[in-house]
Amino acid sequence: MPRKRLYRSKKKLGQVPGSVIYTGERSKDKLFIETFDYNKDYVFEKELPTVEDTFKFKFTDSVTWINLNGLNHVASIEKLGTHFGLHPLVLEDIVNIAQRPKIDEYEGYIFVVLKMLYYDTKQNIVSEQVSFILGSNYVFSFQESEGDVFDTIRERIRLAKGRIRTMQADYLLYALMDAIVDHYFSIVEVLGDKIEDFETAVFEGQTKDDASKNIQDLKREVLRLRRAIFPLKEVLNRIDRNENNLIQKKTITYFSDIADHLTQVTENIEIYREMTWSLMDMYMTTISNKMNEVMKVLTIMASIFIPLTFIAGIYGMNFENIPELHYKNAYFIVWGIMILIVLGMLYYFKKKKWL
Amino acid sequence: MPRKRLYRSKKKLGQVPGSVIYTGERSKDKLFIETFDYNKDYVFEKELPTVEDTFKFKFTDSVTWINLNGLNHVASIEKLGTHFGLHPLVLEDIVNIAQRPKIDEYEGYIFVVLKMLYYDTKQNIVSEQVSFILGSNYVFSFQESEGDVFDTIRERIRLAKGRIRTMQADYLLYALMDAIVDHYFSIVEVLGDKIEDFETAVFEGQTKDDASKNIQDLKREVLRLRRAIFPLKEVLNRIDRNENNLIQKKTITYFSDIADHLTQVTENIEIYREMTWSLMDMYMTTISNKMNEVMKVLTIMASIFIPLTFIAGIYGMNFENIPELHYKNAYFIVWGIMILIVLGMLYYFKKKKWL
Amino acid sequence: MPRKRLYRSKKKLGQVPGSVIYTGERSKDKLFIETFDYNKDYVFEKELPTVEDTFKFKFTDSVTWINLNGLNHVASIEKLGTHFGLHPLVLEDIVNIAQRPKIDEYEGYIFVVLKMLYYDTKQNIVSEQVSFILGSNYVFSFQESEGDVFDTIRERIRLAKGRIRTMQADYLLYALMDAIVDHYFSIVEVLGDKIEDFETAVFEGQTKDDASKNIQDLKREVLRLRRAIFPLKEVLNRIDRNENNLIQKKTITYFSDIADHLTQVTENIEIYREMTWSLMDMYMTTISNKMNEVMKVLTIMASIFIPLTFIAGIYGMNFENIPELHYKNAYFIVWGIMILIVLGMLYYFKKKKWL
Amino acid sequence: MPRKRLYRSKKKLGQVPGSVIYTGERSKDKLFIETFDYNKDYVFEKELPTVEDTFKFKFTDSVTWINLNGLNHVASIEKLGTHFGLHPLVLEDIVNIAQRPKIDEYEGYIFVVLKMLYYDTKQNIVSEQVSFILGSNYVFSFQESEGDVFDTIRERIRLAKGRIRTMQADYLLYALMDAIVDHYFSIVEVLGDKIEDFETAVFEGQTKDDASKNIQDLKREVLRLRRAIFPLKEVLNRIDRNENNLIQKKTITYFSDIADHLTQVTENIEIYREMTWSLMDMYMTTISNKMNEVMKVLTIMASIFIPLTFIAGIYGMNFENIPELHYKNAYFIVWGIMILIVLGMLYYFKKKKWL
Amino acid sequence: MPRKRLYRSKKKLGQVPGSVIYTGERSKDKLFIETFDYNKDYVFEKELPTVEDTFKFKFTDSVTWINLNGLNHVASIEKLGTHFGLHPLVLEDIVNIAQRPKIDEYEGYIFVVLKMLYYDTKQNIVSEQVSFILGSNYVFSFQESEGDVFDTIRERIRLAKGRIRTMQADYLLYALMDAIVDHYFSIVEVLGDKIEDFETAVFEGQTKDDASKNIQDLKREVLRLRRAIFPLKEVLNRIDRNENNLIQKKTITYFSDIADHLTQVTENIEIYREMTWSLMDMYMTTISNKMNEVMKVLTIMASIFIPLTFIAGIYGMNFENIPELHYKNAYFIVWGIMILIVLGMLYYFKKKKWL
Repeated sequence: MPRKRLYRSKKKLGQVPGSVIYTGERSKDKLFIETFDYNKDYVFEKELPTVEDTFKFKFTDSVTWINLNGLNHVASIEKLGTHFGLHPLVLEDIVNIAQRPKIDEYEGYIFVVLKMLYYDTKQNIVSEQVSFILGSNYVFSFQESEGDVFDTIRERIRLAKGRIRTMQADYLLYALMDAIVDHYFSIVEVLGDKIEDFETAVFEGQTKDDASKNIQDLKREVLRLRRAIFPLKEVLNRIDRNENNLIQKKTITYFSDIADHLTQVTENIEIYREMTWSLMDMYMTTISNKMNEVMKVLTIMASIFIPLTFIAGIYGMNFENIPELHYKNAYFIVWGIMILIVLGMLYYFKKKKWL
Repeated sequence: MPRKRLYRSKKKLGQVPGSVIYTGERSKDKLFIETFDYNKDYVFEKELPTVEDTFKFKFTDSVTWINLNGLNHVASIEKLGTHFGLHPLVLEDIVNIAQRPKIDEYEGYIFVVLKMLYYDTKQNIVSEQVSFILGSNYVFSFQESEGDVFDTIRERIRLAKGRIRTMQADYLLYALMDAIVDHYFSIVEVLGDKIEDFETAVFEGQTKDDASKNIQDLKREVLRLRRAIFPLKEVLNRIDRNENNLIQKKTITYFSDIADHLTQVTENIEIYREMTWSLMDMYMTTISNKMNEVMKVLTIMASIFIPLTFIAGIYGMNFENIPELHYKNAYFIVWGIMILIVLGMLYYFKKKKWL
Repeated sequence: MPRKRLYRSKKKLGQVPGSVIYTGERSKDKLFIETFDYNKDYVFEKELPTVEDTFKFKFTDSVTWINLNGLNHVASIEKLGTHFGLHPLVLEDIVNIAQRPKIDEYEGYIFVVLKMLYYDTKQNIVSEQVSFILGSNYVFSFQESEGDVFDTIRERIRLAKGRIRTMQADYLLYALMDAIVDHYFSIVEVLGDKIEDFETAVFEGQTKDDASKNIQDLKREVLRLRRAIFPLKEVLNRIDRNENNLIQKKTITYFSDIADHLTQVTENIEIYREMTWSLMDMYMTTISNKMNEVMKVLTIMASIFIPLTFIAGIYGMNFENIPELHYKNAYFIVWGIMILIVLGMLYYFKKKKWL
Repeated sequence: MPRKRLYRSKKKLGQVPGSVIYTGERSKDKLFIETFDYNKDYVFEKELPTVEDTFKFKFTDSVTWINLNGLNHVASIEKLGTHFGLHPLVLEDIVNIAQRPKIDEYEGYIFVVLKMLYYDTKQNIVSEQVSFILGSNYVFSFQESEGDVFDTIRERIRLAKGRIRTMQADYLLYALMDAIVDHYFSIVEVLGDKIEDFETAVFEGQTKDDASKNIQDLKREVLRLRRAIFPLKEVLNRIDRNENNLIQKKTITYFSDIADHLTQVTENIEIYREMTWSLMDMYMTTISNKMNEVMKVLTIMASIFIPLTFIAGIYGMNFENIPELHYKNAYFIVWGIMILIVLGMLYYFKKKKWL
Repeated sequence: MPRKRLYRSKKKLGQVPGSVIYTGERSKDKLFIETFDYNKDYVFEKELPTVEDTFKFKFTDSVTWINLNGLNHVASIEKLGTHFGLHPLVLEDIVNIAQRPKIDEYEGYIFVVLKMLYYDTKQNIVSEQVSFILGSNYVFSFQESEGDVFDTIRERIRLAKGRIRTMQADYLLYALMDAIVDHYFSIVEVLGDKIEDFETAVFEGQTKDDASKNIQDLKREVLRLRRAIFPLKEVLNRIDRNENNLIQKKTITYFSDIADHLTQVTENIEIYREMTWSLMDMYMTTISNKMNEVMKVLTIMASIFIPLTFIAGIYGMNFENIPELHYKNAYFIVWGIMILIVLGMLYYFKKKKWL
């Protein structure tokens, strides 16, 4: 994840609590409000031009999903909040995109924050904050910009696939959260592939000297993924223990199913975490193995030629009286001795398995 | 474990919850339904051609075990589910073989998922999902394909060995789960042998350069084994605290016995985990010891011959006035000095315990 | 953090418990008492010359914030304590600046200690203790010296920004604590930058031999930051569970918001902690990589020239009968052989990717 | 501990639960039943030939200790179980010597399993399983073979030392368990000595290349010791919380005393565990230090002689015109220069503290 | 801490529980009983010759502190125990100096054990066991020998400093425990200095080869300190939750204050623990850095002179036809080439930052 995303909340330092201030970077995106209103028998789908158009859905009998894109339009969000009676801290949290996943229960509605994760074009994990308000007959979803993982939900509402049209707003919230958590699987899978590919590269010695930097980056990626996903466990636990009548008993079974999926995701992340932590050791042994090989070449070369050079040196001395110099075949005998020495050394290194 | 097994659930992304979709790979296996119906006095065993044939066992007084192999036959499983009143999420979980071990209590039945582990022909651990439905008078078991660890149970039912024929369906569930957990012992034992053999190989320096890769693979195997087995603890704890009248008080004693066995298995896994984590350090010291040996050979060779070569070089100089050159026995004296130097060096290295 | 700050409490050893003894070092700072008294309609702000001037605020209906700077003026603090009925241990803790963050509930008031963190001019983290007393209609804050992070609060009181003027003393306590915790974000951010810069330096090999010392210092800094911040979690948890009527139910929502921020801060600290712990490994691989490079240069040089020198030595021997010496082009042929050897070696090293 | 002891339970795979099958190796040991029957005023001690002789002690008023050695005599143990109304799973656990320490409460009796540890003649820790049945007026103890740590208990019963003769069966159970736990101290002490001796050996470089193997073995020994001892904590906690009237309130004080001792033992094991884990690092630095020394010798030798050899080489050249060759004292001047170079090098190495 | 202190309890193996056996080494110290009897208005201080003299304080209205030094006088301690109705296990624990810190509540009194720590003359941490009995109107303290940290308490009783003379026995116990815990600060501070000094020494390379041994010793010291101090947390927690009327509600505030101090101490110990664990890594990098330096010297020397020696070797060959030998300035040209090679190498090493 790019470094700058970690501190977006900085912009807010020293502000009055409850100030509704957008902390993201997409300040020029236009507002886009998408509405689905449905019950068992009919479905109404429309793009609404202004937030005021959503007000009429407050007291209908049908289930309404209002999906608002463009957190920079804080004035509109505040109007919405006032009409539907949302707490100022909730509005502040919706537009402060550095929230961690959480659930807050208020009188008459539940506020849920979580992270939608996807890979950008450079294969960096991008984390986009999605907030939900679950009221008795409506779900609001707030996103920074268009583009999400909810297309299957839209399809199911339109075509009345599955039981979504026969259920209440709490089931809609479940379906939206489930879509986000399901998408985590593919994120974790890509991460896993990255780690295993890197492992293979390290093992095959195809890494550059920047391997330790890459490992450190992988570690950081795993840690941030953990941070984005793990708090959601607590959110789902609190829904499980929920006594609020906004989430019905029979829907809780479905939320438990998300919790199961999340546990699978987090267990995989933990495995990848341990694997990543081991990578540095693995890389270290690779370096040491390489050095061993370098040292062996040096030792073999030096051990073979140093004694030979010594012998040549002996008979290069200028003493007047060196009897061997005058033997006829001395030169060839010396060559013979040298070859014997080389063979002896080679045999020794072979036995030591250095060759 | 082969890598691809981790992500089978991917196939399901974006599906309506409660969709009964088989996520495995054995899509061509045929359906095989095995039935045991018994009480104290009689036993009936038959292979049933269709799921409809199982419907009659819903209201009998005897205990019925229906063992269904072939999760790809989702239509049959849905029929079964409808007749016996199973929740759509249960059916979804039965055929989604990427579930983690869990227990879910529903009105009138209990749903248990666990992993049957065995080694395939290549000595890789294979994990096959087995689901159980415990009703008041029946147990359903669902497996991906034929071949399991239940043969001793079949024998005990046929021959009325032990107390199985005198007990209810909850005892049957116990017996089936016990058979699976008992088999874990042999899995863990094989893993332990692998680790200890590898340890010996590392220690004896018989490893290739791929040792760090092998260690990483062992770590991953231990982590996945943990993930397949550990959640079962929670399942057994929940049975222990059970207040559902489907599992009788006197049978809970037996389930506690499984919990004891499981704790033994998990403690062994934890020991192997710590051992595996230490292997990399052990391998590292082996590499360093080898390098030490290489360096010693180089140092000994170089330290002995470099001074000798220097002496030879001295008397190879062409100065007009080198008095030693003219002494009659100079050559032999130089040899003597050289031999003394070698002996001195050897003594020094001996004292340092390098030889 | 400078080493000496850890043990300030030493000065107190062997004192009677409840002794109000200042343990800091700024013993010459003058007393500075700042007061804000306000309600919805009016605000009164003044610097008070003596503590006695604060006594009159004990029974007013308005909210009073008394900010006392100068913990060395123990006599004044004791007078204040006596008038407002504070426990001797509370007074002792206010002036003992080695307290860890905590909350103590007493009859009629709540005592909170936390740490205000900032960077001094040398980029060392300085931790200054701030204590709060929350009574029914007043908040006392005690600081070692002037200069704090409360300017935005002062502004909000003066200008009635946000809801502060319409709320009670518990909201004022919230606002003050929130200002401190908000400031932690920038501290952690600077630390994060330090660590990432150091990481880059290590990776680029720009570190001196003191890198391991620096890493150890970074570790210590992270550990001390943890120690200053983490206990605050427990403080906020206890406010959450609070049944004391000094903190109203509707204000607890705000304190939960601080808890959320704190969790973000502590999660970042944990990430930096793991990153810092990994730095030593990363540094180690850098050293090993450097040594590998050194060894390669040595091995290449030695492997190329040692055989050549041997050949030169051969033909420097003084045997009477060395036939090659008399061939006309022998010298040039030997040069040719040598060049071939060099090329062969270079090819070999190229193939091994050592060049 | 020898490897084979870990998997003794294997023999049992696929058996009917409740099958009383001995899983140990001492299948030829004869049955040995020792009885103590006592109250305040009298004591009766006898070796009983058959289990039937124990039946009469079921309804006496005195306290009876029946110590049965020889778990291979399963038929006798089953007879005993039937007469005293023991659950089949209890009998199974008594003779399955791979149990982990545990306590199970049944109607009318309590079943306790723990491990008696001692060193065999080869200084390996041997773990022998001891089971206890505490009834209202009797304690059964089951051991694999004769030889135990209960001699002091026998003595105390015979001579009425301490309060044992005035207390009930629960105190007898306490005394027996206390004897076992007390013996753990000496086991842990021997282990501690082993570790500290090994530490000294590593530090003094007296280890062979198998040090890393030895460290791994020490780790395994500590882990298995932990596994044998730690679960006993839970056993004692459950006795502490006990509401069963088999263990009286005043005796619980004594069991708390065992718990205290056990905590001391486990804390020591934890310390030894951390020490053992550090040993590998310590060994690693030893290896590196050795290599450093080897490298220094090589570097010193090479750095001194390589330049000298070069100078000798210069004046070994055969150029016609080398003026120095003809100077009268050139040879001696060259020697002087060489000696200066050596002294310079030595000074340099001295300054670097390599000598 | 010296090794032998760990196993003192060995002496007791096989003894009857409740045997009052001194396990320390100071068996020749004489008995020393110091008494303070006081209330608001008077104070009586005396050294008592025998334990019998303490009996009269059992039923007084004043607060009595009886400080008994000399645990080897077991007979006297047993007499005291009998008179004041202490449980045999309490007496056993008082004289068994290998107890871990704990609190036991009995009918009519509370028994507390903790460790007084100080440095002996060789800068080793010595841990002396101090036990307290808190009755309704008295506190007994038991020490191995004279010399303690209670002088400030004595002074406060004599001079009625603070509130000690106006409070009950529970406050006296608090004051004594507070004195011991306060002293921990200085112990931990000395340890911290030791670690930081060692860190500096390692960093500056001033360590001998025994550094890894020293680090191991530091680790052990930290672990034992932890073991002596951490259990006290649990003791203080239990006093906090206390419902016994021996410790009054208003005194519990004071005990919470000790708990705060203890948490500060334990947090520091944890920081030192992490620092100590990092030391080995730091030492390792120091070794590697040294080796790098050694290798660089070797490589530079060898890389410079090996090519030069080769050139000299070339012109030392005895071929008849080497044209260069006859050129007039060949010798000087060769020198020029050699100097160029040296400069080139130096430039290369400079660029690589090896010089």
